[in-house]
Amino acid sequence: MKLMLALDVMSKNEALKIAEETKDFVDIIKIGYPLVLSTGIEIVKEIKNKTNKEVVCDFKVADIPATNEKIAKTTLKYADAIICQGFVGKDSVMAIQKVAEEYGNKGAPKKVIMVTEMSHLSAVEFLQPVADDLAKMAKELSVDGVVAPSTRPERLKEIKEIVGDIPIISPGVGAQGGDLDKVLEILGDNDYVIVGRGIYEHNNPKESAKHYKKLISKN
Amino acid sequence: MKLMLALDVMSKNEALKIAEETKDFVDIIKIGYPLVLSTGIEIVKEIKNKTNKEVVCDFKVADIPATNEKIAKTTLKYADAIICQGFVGKDSVMAIQKVAEEYGNKGAPKKVIMVTEMSHLSAVEFLQPVADDLAKMAKELSVDGVVAPSTRPERLKEIKEIVGDIPIISPGVGAQGGDLDKVLEILGDNDYVIVGRGIYEHNNPKESAKHYKKLISKN
Repeated sequence: MKLMLALDVMSKNEALKIAEETKDFVDIIKIGYPLVLSTGIEIVKEIKNKTNKEVVCDFKVADIPATNEKIAKTTLKYADAIICQGFVGKDSVMAIQKVAEEYGNKGAPKKVIMVTEMSHLSAVEFLQPVADDLAKMAKELSVDGVVAPSTRPERLKEIKEIVGDIPIISPGVGAQGGDLDKVLEILGDNDYVIVGRGIYEHNNPKESAKHYKKLISKN
Repeated sequence: MKLMLALDVMSKNEALKIAEETKDFVDIIKIGYPLVLSTGIEIVKEIKNKTNKEVVCDFKVADIPATNEKIAKTTLKYADAIICQGFVGKDSVMAIQKVAEEYGNKGAPKKVIMVTEMSHLSAVEFLQPVADDLAKMAKELSVDGVVAPSTRPERLKEIKEIVGDIPIISPGVGAQGGDLDKVLEILGDNDYVIVGRGIYEHNNPKESAKHYKKLISKN
């Protein structure tokens, strides 16, 4: 199983410092709009240069196909993967997949990861009731990964059963209260446990990353 | 009724040129991630300086509350309003409203606009079935505006009935095929018709903006 660092800090220096400190224990790095809005999309390149890791842009892209396409075109120039919402429908996800395929044909492969159910409280209001259908859509579209919540292990299990061999990217362990032991029973070698605040807010991010990597590797 | 220009071009020069050319006929300017990823969030300030118009960041923010809060904090430093998705649930929207309120208490008012139903084809898959409930949530949360589609006038009408006096921001006229006449029968003085490609892809953006402003003002 792999460790994905959610590098949700707001400053370039802090991001690069934590990325470099933790790189021996982190398999892949995920950043989001907070950092990109503060520093610019070029931060992706700098993190890759410092760490030699793949970088996922977790932009929860949720727009009409024409706009999703434009967002993907700029993002995937830098990042190895992009995370989008499935809730906006199939054609919006496919617009991103088309860009990933075009870019992948010309150079390094690009991945599209789709959200099914999210980890926060009010994800139960609108997302959870359709999350199984979203997981089926993800399977049908052959996306490269799906996001499913560690905060609700029973839902994580159901979604994993639907998507089969599509890798799961699972947030919610650590600050959000997800139970890592339960999650480790469900996820497999090709899946990713996301840890954010548990590492970057720790007084020793390197030690914390090492700790999580060890916990994950025991399985 | 008001005209909102969706300035979805990818270059800074083009954005500033079109914003300036059309400013006499446009009431408010909306930009999205395609432009911001290409140029940086400071583009908001430059557009405001050139036009003296309010700028809305249409970021379709769709993340967990902690991340939505961070996105809103950076965005509303520059923009007058931010557009978020409601399907991620109440707490995610409220995280943005909290930032808008804090900033508004210290300076110029900041608006939070929430998406109900979108204008593209596959919005019927997951969004449309819950759009009325999203509209009710928008009303309950007293958001400052809701997005509802001009491509489906019957849905626009239903959503307007639910949200009452909350202003509607309606995309889909022009390139997306929405029927402006039908839309004008439904919307009122405080509502916004969004035109994007119909203006910025026109060979004369100024004339096109003038044309749309005239059509809208006849009602």
